[in-house]
Amino acid sequence: MFELDSRLANDTLLVGDLPLCRVLLMNDCQFPWVILVPRIADVTEIIELNKHQRQQFWLESDAVSRVLKTLFSPDKLNVAALGNIVKQLHLHHIARFETDVAWPAPVWGRQATKAYDTEQANALCDRLRHALELTP
Amino acid sequence: MFELDSRLANDTLLVGDLPLCRVLLMNDCQFPWVILVPRIADVTEIIELNKHQRQQFWLESDAVSRVLKTLFSPDKLNVAALGNIVKQLHLHHIARFETDVAWPAPVWGRQATKAYDTEQANALCDRLRHALELTP
Repeated sequence: MFELDSRLANDTLLVGDLPLCRVLLMNDCQFPWVILVPRIADVTEIIELNKHQRQQFWLESDAVSRVLKTLFSPDKLNVAALGNIVKQLHLHHIARFETDVAWPAPVWGRQATKAYDTEQANALCDRLRHALELTP
Repeated sequence: MFELDSRLANDTLLVGDLPLCRVLLMNDCQFPWVILVPRIADVTEIIELNKHQRQQFWLESDAVSRVLKTLFSPDKLNVAALGNIVKQLHLHHIARFETDVAWPAPVWGRQATKAYDTEQANALCDRLRHALELTP
């Protein structure tokens, strides 16, 4: 049975569920950063998804990328499945700006995270839900 | 017209061409690291590929991931499209090991690269060509 990794749960805010993936907002106000986690137990690599699941995974990833591009007009999108620390398959989508704190380096492990305040977080999760056509 | 970014060309060894992508071996003997570059001009984001191209892109990515898993039995695969420095769309596939020099951090920009010697490079490119069923 699918259960969200506790580290992912601690580091993120819940946006909602797409048909395959849980949609999470990384709780770091330095970057618009959405994580997709397929709601499937014991999957660590993309190639462990079956063909149908992989197609759906990339459809949902594309939807998230388009929403980040539309809402934030980033200079670049970073899309990555790493998982060296958290093994549960999760796909990062990060809207990057030439003015952001980590540019042009990758974001992971470079600087301390900065949590959203509650009002910011609620507003952003609502914008993402609306753009992804998710019900709250 | 497609032309490989000069920085990618300098940092890699040519493996061959799959139907959509150029296959490159990162010239860093610290990690088995394959890069796919769609042979399409002026593409920087995955979502700029059309539907057919995206499907082919992920088929080729899966093939590379499977080959890295089969040949190297890594502890984890890292699959990522970043492109903050080199804008031309390229997808990293890196076989990671708990014993590698960067573990568990991402590989980019952490340590100096170490080039393969010519014999190693030729042998590894041949193994990849064979596994990906590419003609030399």
